Amino acid sequence: MKKYVLPLVILTGYAPALADVKAPEPNLAYQIVEGLTTEVGQRLAGTEAEARARDWGVAKLKALGFANVHIEPYDMPVWVRGAETAEVVVPYPQKLALTALGNSGATPEVGLSAEVIAFSSLAELKSAPDAAIKGKIVYVTHQMMGTQDGSSYGYFGPVRFIGPSIAAKKGAAAYLLRSLGTNEHRVPHTGVTDWEKGVAPIPAAALSVPDAENIDRMLARAGQPIVIHLTLTPKFTGTHTSGNVIAEVPGSDPAAGIVVIGGHLDSWDLGTGAIDDGAGVAITTAAAHRLLAGSPPKRTIRVVWWGSEEEGGFGSDAYFKAHRTEKHVMAAESDFGADRVWAFSTKVPDSANSFTDRLATALAPLGIVADKRAAHGGADVEKLIEAGAAVVDLRQDGTHYFDIHHTADDTLDKIDPAQMQQNVEAWAVFLKLAANAPEDFIAKSRAGVVAK
Amino acid sequence: MKKYVLPLVILTGYAPALADVKAPEPNLAYQIVEGLTTEVGQRLAGTEAEARARDWGVAKLKALGFANVHIEPYDMPVWVRGAETAEVVVPYPQKLALTALGNSGATPEVGLSAEVIAFSSLAELKSAPDAAIKGKIVYVTHQMMGTQDGSSYGYFGPVRFIGPSIAAKKGAAAYLLRSLGTNEHRVPHTGVTDWEKGVAPIPAAALSVPDAENIDRMLARAGQPIVIHLTLTPKFTGTHTSGNVIAEVPGSDPAAGIVVIGGHLDSWDLGTGAIDDGAGVAITTAAAHRLLAGSPPKRTIRVVWWGSEEEGGFGSDAYFKAHRTEKHVMAAESDFGADRVWAFSTKVPDSANSFTDRLATALAPLGIVADKRAAHGGADVEKLIEAGAAVVDLRQDGTHYFDIHHTADDTLDKIDPAQMQQNVEAWAVFLKLAANAPEDFIAKSRAGVVAK
Repeated sequence: MKKYVLPLVILTGYAPALADVKAPEPNLAYQIVEGLTTEVGQRLAGTEAEARARDWGVAKLKALGFANVHIEPYDMPVWVRGAETAEVVVPYPQKLALTALGNSGATPEVGLSAEVIAFSSLAELKSAPDAAIKGKIVYVTHQMMGTQDGSSYGYFGPVRFIGPSIAAKKGAAAYLLRSLGTNEHRVPHTGVTDWEKGVAPIPAAALSVPDAENIDRMLARAGQPIVIHLTLTPKFTGTHTSGNVIAEVPGSDPAAGIVVIGGHLDSWDLGTGAIDDGAGVAITTAAAHRLLAGSPPKRTIRVVWWGSEEEGGFGSDAYFKAHRTEKHVMAAESDFGADRVWAFSTKVPDSANSFTDRLATALAPLGIVADKRAAHGGADVEKLIEAGAAVVDLRQDGTHYFDIHHTADDTLDKIDPAQMQQNVEAWAVFLKLAANAPEDFIAKSRAGVVAK
Repeated sequence: MKKYVLPLVILTGYAPALADVKAPEPNLAYQIVEGLTTEVGQRLAGTEAEARARDWGVAKLKALGFANVHIEPYDMPVWVRGAETAEVVVPYPQKLALTALGNSGATPEVGLSAEVIAFSSLAELKSAPDAAIKGKIVYVTHQMMGTQDGSSYGYFGPVRFIGPSIAAKKGAAAYLLRSLGTNEHRVPHTGVTDWEKGVAPIPAAALSVPDAENIDRMLARAGQPIVIHLTLTPKFTGTHTSGNVIAEVPGSDPAAGIVVIGGHLDSWDLGTGAIDDGAGVAITTAAAHRLLAGSPPKRTIRVVWWGSEEEGGFGSDAYFKAHRTEKHVMAAESDFGADRVWAFSTKVPDSANSFTDRLATALAPLGIVADKRAAHGGADVEKLIEAGAAVVDLRQDGTHYFDIHHTADDTLDKIDPAQMQQNVEAWAVFLKLAANAPEDFIAKSRAGVVAK
């Protein structure tokens, strides 16, 4: 397509009006996530790929005109994926599609073979006698379905978060779960699992949903034991450098405090980190970019591209350690994909309730309703909120988020640019209000903590 | 769920009517494909897995009451997949999801690295000078979209069927294509490629659609060459045994000839062969099973579970060699998934046109319309049709077939039991008419060939 040249007569005629409502760079958010997924791709925390992503981010944020663009490095232990194969050996030989959970232990290089013992829930596993589990491959299934607010992930999540540790304590040889996912594709869902202190990690992996259903059908036939041969060789490679990328829209009043927003830059290693969380990085950056033009906001807007969210928040820990004494008045994170925002919620002192009312009025034209439940922020801003910062959630539609979450399918094509752009509009509306609001958002009871 | 017991009073009251319209075993087709995918899974032609599938089939067909159930073995060269990994090395290091095409050559064990030369069509590749291609990785993209009648596969197919051979003749180091598929998942589509006589196979593989689109975005940035490191180690393992599984519904009049139907038993090795072609095997078997009850049809219905369709019809060749002198009056194959039949077409002598009219009337209540284009049958029955057999196509909706075709995603969950059952109804209607029709379907001009 030839480049379109606006006729000069129109440009002249409308110049003042255009300057007044200066159009932002079109689809900047999509451009950012397109660049990050194409030019970097997966960005597992603490790896060379995440380092490339940080450099990419610094160059991009500087080019966009942000102030104070820099990397704040920290160290973290780094877990990397190895070989991962599995097959049913008895009674119906078949290969299985699966992927190791983050922090999974390893099998011997040649793998291990063991009988499967199946549970339909974590409660069933917990109540089983150790003798029944010892030396076996524990398999836990469940029926997570998509919900608009993503709440099913919280309900079913422990199957991944703590199931392996429970099985390890009971002497299991390995742990398999049906992916915490809502799709029907042979792309298993990874994600971190947490080992209780003192528990030696066992091999732990997620089967794709179709593979889990195949095992379920084999189990339903019963008659003889099911034996699986499993090879997983992930490992910790030692301590390496990760980091947060920081950029600012400088505020006019240093005493007014900081509004912290962002998404996480790191991703799981299977896809290209488009919806998790290239989208959050892109949406919040594009929204903050709107406020770079024209007169500065009262408060500084600090955009953080958080490092290592997936492995447990080493990035947010490092940030909190370095910045806790600064006046963070409000914090928000975008980390739930790129589908449209359908609701918002806040957690502000009673003295700032009129801010919530103004926000409701400003977001309504974008199809966003007020949700009376308190906002909780994202994993990366938890500590800031505990320390007294107010918080706003812009809640995205999560109905299809867990079709893709933590899989090889997390690629650019899953993002709808139009829905992503609605997110940018919503965040820009929120930022403009939050950065200029006359209210002091910090709860009086918590002001001391923040000032410490 | 507790087993449901029909109250005796109702059973008694309706017994005669029930006997008259004796309900078939419910969802027999789904039961067959469920069993085949669960108890066998993938069935690559000529492998031990395909042999297990044949044994499974013989046991199932005997249990269902078919006559003359047996295996007809033959030998074939067997190609098997090896390692398959790839990554962009320059300028944006990223792993790629891809899979070798059937009959692909191999790279060295350590892989090869080469610059990519991209073409948007096969025509572009054909017209490129050899000097531009020599030593490079040829990459051909295209934009196949789903169509109800599957015709886009015919149009775009040469990109896979003959593209690698063309590139090899021009001195390419390897060949990559955007998967011949219509989905947006990281599951690449395999399928056979054909080498022109005398051409030494080169490594040839399909990128998943999201990976191909990522390469396209890298190419759009240009500025510097794209280098890919590719490792593919498939190989031919020599000659092994494959076979067709055959079963019959005996006809009352041996002189009336045979109606041959079926699907192919072998599958690609990535999924479990549910829609390609466990579904076709299951649909045609369940339909023929309807005719086992009650008085026998005039003609024998022969159900063939064809072996090695995917690798080029060694099964149909062996069948034709063994059975060509038998009187095959009609042939039909189900090999396009399990979605509903929306149209039918025939290719019969003019003297049998009233059969087509009766079939149209009988299929209309199932939502199936007459398509005036001539039927062409499936790959496995081509030779029988060339030799004079009439043919009927029951055309399935293929809009989503190429989302799944030849991928790891070809699993049971992709089959809708209700749509599959509509297929069974259609095939049963067709079989009842074809096996009892007074018409002699064999074209007079071809009768001699059949009788040879």
